[in-house]
Amino acid sequence: MTNKDARTPASAQTSDEVSADGEAGKSIGWHKAYVEGTRSDLRVPVRQVHLTNGRSVTLYDTSGPYTDPLVETDVRRGLPPLRENWVIARGDTEEYAGRPVRPEDDGIKHTSPRGGLRNLDAVFPGRPRLPRRGRDGQAVTQLAYARRGEITPEMEYVAIRENVEPEVVREEIAAGRAVLPANVNHPEIEPMIIGKRFLVKVNANIGNSAVTSSIEEEVEKMTWATRWGADTVMDLSTGRNIHTTREWVLRNSPVPIGTVPLYQALEKVDGRAEELTWEIYKDTVIEQAEQGVDYMTVHAGVRLPYVPLTANRKTGIVSRGGSIMAAWCLAHHKESFLYENFEELCEILAAYDVTYSLGDGLRPGSIADANDEAQFAELRTLGELNRIAKRFHVQTMIEGPGHVPMHKIKENIDLQQEICDEAPFYTLGPLTTDVAPAYDHITSGIGAAMIAWWGTAMLCYVTPKEHLGLPNRDDVKTGVITYKIAAHAADLAKGHPGAQEWDDALSDARFEFRWEDQFNLALDPDTAREFHDETLPAEPAKTAHFCSMCGPKFCSMKISHDIRREHGGSQAEVEEGMAQKSKEFAAAGNRVYLPIAD
Amino acid sequence: MTNKDARTPASAQTSDEVSADGEAGKSIGWHKAYVEGTRSDLRVPVRQVHLTNGRSVTLYDTSGPYTDPLVETDVRRGLPPLRENWVIARGDTEEYAGRPVRPEDDGIKHTSPRGGLRNLDAVFPGRPRLPRRGRDGQAVTQLAYARRGEITPEMEYVAIRENVEPEVVREEIAAGRAVLPANVNHPEIEPMIIGKRFLVKVNANIGNSAVTSSIEEEVEKMTWATRWGADTVMDLSTGRNIHTTREWVLRNSPVPIGTVPLYQALEKVDGRAEELTWEIYKDTVIEQAEQGVDYMTVHAGVRLPYVPLTANRKTGIVSRGGSIMAAWCLAHHKESFLYENFEELCEILAAYDVTYSLGDGLRPGSIADANDEAQFAELRTLGELNRIAKRFHVQTMIEGPGHVPMHKIKENIDLQQEICDEAPFYTLGPLTTDVAPAYDHITSGIGAAMIAWWGTAMLCYVTPKEHLGLPNRDDVKTGVITYKIAAHAADLAKGHPGAQEWDDALSDARFEFRWEDQFNLALDPDTAREFHDETLPAEPAKTAHFCSMCGPKFCSMKISHDIRREHGGSQAEVEEGMAQKSKEFAAAGNRVYLPIAD
Repeated sequence: MTNKDARTPASAQTSDEVSADGEAGKSIGWHKAYVEGTRSDLRVPVRQVHLTNGRSVTLYDTSGPYTDPLVETDVRRGLPPLRENWVIARGDTEEYAGRPVRPEDDGIKHTSPRGGLRNLDAVFPGRPRLPRRGRDGQAVTQLAYARRGEITPEMEYVAIRENVEPEVVREEIAAGRAVLPANVNHPEIEPMIIGKRFLVKVNANIGNSAVTSSIEEEVEKMTWATRWGADTVMDLSTGRNIHTTREWVLRNSPVPIGTVPLYQALEKVDGRAEELTWEIYKDTVIEQAEQGVDYMTVHAGVRLPYVPLTANRKTGIVSRGGSIMAAWCLAHHKESFLYENFEELCEILAAYDVTYSLGDGLRPGSIADANDEAQFAELRTLGELNRIAKRFHVQTMIEGPGHVPMHKIKENIDLQQEICDEAPFYTLGPLTTDVAPAYDHITSGIGAAMIAWWGTAMLCYVTPKEHLGLPNRDDVKTGVITYKIAAHAADLAKGHPGAQEWDDALSDARFEFRWEDQFNLALDPDTAREFHDETLPAEPAKTAHFCSMCGPKFCSMKISHDIRREHGGSQAEVEEGMAQKSKEFAAAGNRVYLPIAD
Repeated sequence: MTNKDARTPASAQTSDEVSADGEAGKSIGWHKAYVEGTRSDLRVPVRQVHLTNGRSVTLYDTSGPYTDPLVETDVRRGLPPLRENWVIARGDTEEYAGRPVRPEDDGIKHTSPRGGLRNLDAVFPGRPRLPRRGRDGQAVTQLAYARRGEITPEMEYVAIRENVEPEVVREEIAAGRAVLPANVNHPEIEPMIIGKRFLVKVNANIGNSAVTSSIEEEVEKMTWATRWGADTVMDLSTGRNIHTTREWVLRNSPVPIGTVPLYQALEKVDGRAEELTWEIYKDTVIEQAEQGVDYMTVHAGVRLPYVPLTANRKTGIVSRGGSIMAAWCLAHHKESFLYENFEELCEILAAYDVTYSLGDGLRPGSIADANDEAQFAELRTLGELNRIAKRFHVQTMIEGPGHVPMHKIKENIDLQQEICDEAPFYTLGPLTTDVAPAYDHITSGIGAAMIAWWGTAMLCYVTPKEHLGLPNRDDVKTGVITYKIAAHAADLAKGHPGAQEWDDALSDARFEFRWEDQFNLALDPDTAREFHDETLPAEPAKTAHFCSMCGPKFCSMKISHDIRREHGGSQAEVEEGMAQKSKEFAAAGNRVYLPIAD
């Protein structure tokens, strides 16, 4: 993989360095454009690729203001609050003092100079903003508006992005078949939608695990992931400075941010699961909701009676959240406090428009455990919780596995759609075999493409480091690209309007030997260009009517061009031209390809 | 990707260099073993992985004598002729003078000192062997024997490899549902079988294209590909020294070798398709059959009337062989000489037991062209040719696409199985989208896994360089590993007996934190180990009961172990143990994981 990035003008210089053959600037065959909506402050970004044949192709763009040369960004100030006026204008929210930030929010408990210092250093310097919530605790969710028949600016925004009517967006949200994650306290996002009738989305995970990474690194990982196509990012930080890291990520993120509040709550009780309480958890949810987290994974489906069902599994419980809740249930031999207090949790999420991502804490961690009783028992509970959430107007999606062999994948999506009233399915892979650690982006990319074709709305990426270590910058890019492939393959298979135009544009460029266009249309222009140049670096090769695979003598496409030239048109015209063609072909010296060089 | 190779003892030293933490030798957690058949000269190689818990796992091994420390190999002498006595013992073949090798066989035509010299240098130094063929031109094919009810040593060999009864192998071959490619002039191979009732196989392509690579490089590419799991290798060389390169590859290959004779025939007429004749082609086929090529791609399905069907395609004809035959048909406005002389070709192949791989010269080269009339018209002709081949007792498989979106893949295998009487399908990918050049091992790995699950018997790999350049050593490895994943995922989905044991062994190792076992059981032990060590290089981490993803505080598997310890057994026992469990859990300090380090 390459670290260069053709998606920012800045990177054009970078790619000069690779191809030292006078290609300066060539890789900027595109620019960032905006499609305006019904109001001047509603401008939807797109990636406009300019082809050498004068045409242009418009691609969905997740990279945010960072790829707009006209916008000056500063991670210390954060992104402009695009949605702020929309939220205020609705007049159903109010600012309030908010919950005071405490040292333990950043994991500072034992007086640790290192932790303490880093915490002080790390405070987000951007302008402070008071948190807002629904006035009188009313539901200020996109679901509530959609049910009332309102088309919000956010809905119009995604309608333009998805190239559908705003009414379609409203209907899908109102029916609970799609979610538009947009916390009132995260005005910086460019709205996007997750639902089976729309483009398949991809989530990338970041987060400083046991091995601490700096806050700046996490922000950079987020912008890097969205640059390559991540539609949402989950911050799974579990180390120190969780609160502050999240603040930096949120203020700089153009995409919805998801979290697992349980991780931070556990930090607050020093990792002792049994010391967790509903109060500590609730306080953590409010803390994160006030910061602007757009969706939260809640493992409320891990119920006490299901824990023993995992006893004879090959790999037990592999979900962190699931294992924490199972530990709590066992320690107290009591029903999960998340399950017991679910309705109160709904009231809180509704007041900020935080979307539920109901976690599958009992997902299978191996081929052997796929589709077992523990997994499906939890799924049935998630269906029950989904109905409760909808009563409170809380947008909800359902998380899915995991490790599943190909022949058992479809049952997962079919059951989920039936049990959860078609709520969006959000799956991790699934991995189709356990035997390839270091290649689990591929073992899972196979399952991801299939389950997305069958209806999964968003795919959680898997990097090559899964099961082995922490993903670095290249792993994040490889994971995102692999999952964009799975998502687009699914869009094609679902016949999503416009999906094939992209493939057609690239195939036309390939057939017409427009190499620059092939690079600029590629999911990863840098690597495509680099691979081509490894074999044929010279500039003429960029316009040559052959390539290095077959060489000049074996170019299968040249003959195709002869046929096309002569026989393009109706079958009749074609037949009629055959004899004539063969004469001309002979007259032309019968050359199928260029003569041998030597 | 790494270039190191845990599959040869020699490489153990190599991997020391990576992990400088005293792991010397650790990566040799396996050894090459042999399963003896009913005769002493029938020994089937397997890869025996020794686990730290005392158990061992046996894996299918394609790497040949090169990974046996007790066998001394020398590429200049070639591999021992394992099958020679079996072939001779059948008494139905005879040695003969054979066709004299001519300079043009190596592409030496214009007096080019470079070409001339390299040719002289390149002659294979191993012991010369007279070619052999069926006495009185009789069919000496595994199909003929199987139909006569004979179980050959080759059939017994693959039965042991596939862990099935020899009679099953004979039946599948006799029915034409499987092929056992084994030219009587390639005694060096370790027999393998291709059929939907057996393990899904993977082919890797090598060959010096326009950009010439040395003969030694090609041999090394072949051994490298088989080391990572390639079941067959196709030599697609089109440059100079084709004949000599092929000789070196054949004499050193433990797997069946396939070719496309048309490429060499075209070289003999200086790349002028219209100058091709049946005589030149036939002479080339005999030349290659005498050398020992095990299967040949023949594009006899590209008929004159089908050529115009490609005129309005987005990417026309993308198969080299297909375009060459189309060019010939157009030049002469005559029916294909391959189609016209197919019966005579059958007689030749039957006399050496060369297996047909009926090429799909009109396969789609883009999503837009998938499953079109040109493609299926050719497929119907391949069905007709398959029946003719069977009349001559020639083993036959059918090649398939190409570029196909997921929802159109199943139609390909279903139609092929119906039209071609269940002859083995041998597919390239298919690629499920056109938009990701540089990642086509992944776009195609998705389609490959699916079509193999539905019945494809062998997958032709695609490397990251597809559409862009020539694969190097790392690309070959990445392509093979990606396709081994697709093949194994399909074996799992098909419920192939024993397939899941591999996944279970690795998942057990994962659940029990046996890191060394995870590495040694992985498809690519080197990269798995390297990725793990990037984050947790220290030796203790190899035995630690947690890993870097979640860190000590968040290890989900520890709680699972508690549950397993307490609740393993029947559901009743489990329920009964619950209350007791919760007491002990509290008594034990309620620790779910290790305390925080600082």
